Amino acid sequence: MLTLDKIYHAAFILKNAVNKTDMINALNIDSLGNIFLKCENLQKTGSFKIRGAYYKISQLKEDEITNGIVACSAGNHAQGVALASKKNNIKATIFIPDGAPISKVEATKSYGADVKLVGETYTESHDAAVEYCKKAGATFIDPFDDDDIIAGQGTIGLEVLDQLPNVDVVIVPIGGGGLISGVAYAIKQLRPECKVIGVQAERAASMYCSIKNGVRTKTEVVSTFADGVAVKMPGVLTYDYISEYVDDIVTVSEDEIATAILVLMEKQKLVCEGAGALSVAALLSKKVEVDNKNVCCILSGGNIDVNILNRVINRGLLSSGRTSDLYISLMDKPGQLEGVSRVIASNGGNVVGVFYDQGEENTDINSCILKIKMETRNFTQIQEIKDDLEKNGFCVLSRNPY
Amino acid sequence: MLTLDKIYHAAFILKNAVNKTDMINALNIDSLGNIFLKCENLQKTGSFKIRGAYYKISQLKEDEITNGIVACSAGNHAQGVALASKKNNIKATIFIPDGAPISKVEATKSYGADVKLVGETYTESHDAAVEYCKKAGATFIDPFDDDDIIAGQGTIGLEVLDQLPNVDVVIVPIGGGGLISGVAYAIKQLRPECKVIGVQAERAASMYCSIKNGVRTKTEVVSTFADGVAVKMPGVLTYDYISEYVDDIVTVSEDEIATAILVLMEKQKLVCEGAGALSVAALLSKKVEVDNKNVCCILSGGNIDVNILNRVINRGLLSSGRTSDLYISLMDKPGQLEGVSRVIASNGGNVVGVFYDQGEENTDINSCILKIKMETRNFTQIQEIKDDLEKNGFCVLSRNPY
Repeated sequence: MLTLDKIYHAAFILKNAVNKTDMINALNIDSLGNIFLKCENLQKTGSFKIRGAYYKISQLKEDEITNGIVACSAGNHAQGVALASKKNNIKATIFIPDGAPISKVEATKSYGADVKLVGETYTESHDAAVEYCKKAGATFIDPFDDDDIIAGQGTIGLEVLDQLPNVDVVIVPIGGGGLISGVAYAIKQLRPECKVIGVQAERAASMYCSIKNGVRTKTEVVSTFADGVAVKMPGVLTYDYISEYVDDIVTVSEDEIATAILVLMEKQKLVCEGAGALSVAALLSKKVEVDNKNVCCILSGGNIDVNILNRVINRGLLSSGRTSDLYISLMDKPGQLEGVSRVIASNGGNVVGVFYDQGEENTDINSCILKIKMETRNFTQIQEIKDDLEKNGFCVLSRNPY
Repeated sequence: MLTLDKIYHAAFILKNAVNKTDMINALNIDSLGNIFLKCENLQKTGSFKIRGAYYKISQLKEDEITNGIVACSAGNHAQGVALASKKNNIKATIFIPDGAPISKVEATKSYGADVKLVGETYTESHDAAVEYCKKAGATFIDPFDDDDIIAGQGTIGLEVLDQLPNVDVVIVPIGGGGLISGVAYAIKQLRPECKVIGVQAERAASMYCSIKNGVRTKTEVVSTFADGVAVKMPGVLTYDYISEYVDDIVTVSEDEIATAILVLMEKQKLVCEGAGALSVAALLSKKVEVDNKNVCCILSGGNIDVNILNRVINRGLLSSGRTSDLYISLMDKPGQLEGVSRVIASNGGNVVGVFYDQGEENTDINSCILKIKMETRNFTQIQEIKDDLEKNGFCVLSRNPY
């Protein structure tokens, strides 16, 4: 059973094992509320998961650790368990679905865990882990549905109250619900007037649906790039704690998450993974009432694959007018590219890519399509360039013709 | 004159105006030393410059502020002066060279400063600012060559000693030298056995050359993307302080800076600008002896344009084998692209771009060049794909044919 005592005990055990992460006043992120960021993306292993894993492992009895411990995860729980085991000198075997990002596999191995790449999906990998556990007599470490795990995550709630005593709203990402269960429990015991709001990705909204339905509901998780919160079935304990202690749950879209990641990088110089940026996504998309309030957004983790981050940045640059693709239908004669280039340059656009295609079946036989990729300042500048091109006799297509 | 008293006084004045930024133990960045990061990229305005600017402005006399203050900068000093003026209710006019990144101009305006976009270069803009100052009877705020500015930056030295009392080495970026002058002075007064090492970009190494020559030397700054440290002529005061209190200066290349930025993002979840990553670049490129030592790298700032960050990531992905461009010379007949795609997929590569060019004058008239952009895990996987393509009869070109 979860108690405030247990969370205080976890905080005592974790004192020298994890970072008391910084709480940063985010002056530039939203002008209405007084926004603070609790930076668990800067935690050891790059996410809050080390807290629960370390406390859970520290509480295992002698006979529970003799044959080692086992976990299944493609992400942050794997790294948390691996590092916590290493620090406690316990053998850890981590099952990871085959095909998981190499960066996460390598990180888990780097903490000294024995990694087994088994199964195509999480479910297959999980089943193999449970099977292995039985045979080996090892102890399985659940990623969220466990009171010791939840107590460990709850230490973040204590730190929030210490760092921002007059907090009015705490916004917390939800995957399986371990983080928000611990945080909400701690906050509501000590400062019941503070609202605790959960955030899920629209495409992985199992807890949101469960609370709405009044019963734990399994949902098909369609692909979300916030892989850290892609959980199909809420926990038994976490469902109960959330029902009791969380004030509301909201959902955010993939684009809202991507925008939040970009804003956190640009304005706050912080790298977050999709799951880690959910709280800020909810804030920026006005899903939570924050006017004149002291608001704490928990950034739960920062383990995002750089290839994905690259795509998020590209998407964000396009959607904010900082890069732009122009499609121009040209007559195929000398001097055309020079003319287009001159107009773009004179309006301050910076060409970074040119693609030239000599016609398709439904264009004039003498015409071609020119695609220009430009770095720009904003949508106003893009429109100025388009207008000036038209004024100079070029035909700018209103959309991608391909 | 700089004194320890003045730095302590600055710390007192800055107590509620700036963040005491976090000192993070960077477990994953280097295995030899015990590395800590002093995160001034998380400072208000995204850089340490607010410290010096705020303290300087707070010490101005009544008649010095009557007609407002003036500064010239394309970057962090502009934002620092703008915010510090706003907080002290003083009118600030900031000269910025025309053509500076819109993001920096907008940020400066957002702190309430009057921005004048004047001059093609920093020198032109600076001359206009001094001229304006004379006419308006305003006070000019130098970016680094001023004891109050230096004392403000020196407060970082006090915080380093407070957060990491047994520090053995502090590594500090150098542009004009204000930051390292203050930090080195504070450190050497209080813990003289601690080494203070400066880092400059190879392409903007004016202080490095000056110290080597034994006299202030102007150097032509060739283009460096670490724009925050692109200073042609060291300060008079900073040259003297550095001569006396800094143990050594090293230089790093553009690629070493880019790698450091990528490592800080991936391993530490922190966004740094080029100048801000100099200290870690020196560490990763083994320019500083850190074995078994407690090392503090100062991350001076995080204000990097997202378009540039995007390029740094792309470059870093290429140079670490996480993306790859393949050039294949093909006979131009049906089924070729399918064959190539199959080989890549079966080796786990992820195609993200295809470019197809039907021959040039020095290729066979029936052949064409296929360029494939892939996401990959590492160089080993890239080589496996290349070998498998060759085994399947495709001709992989050893380098970009264009």
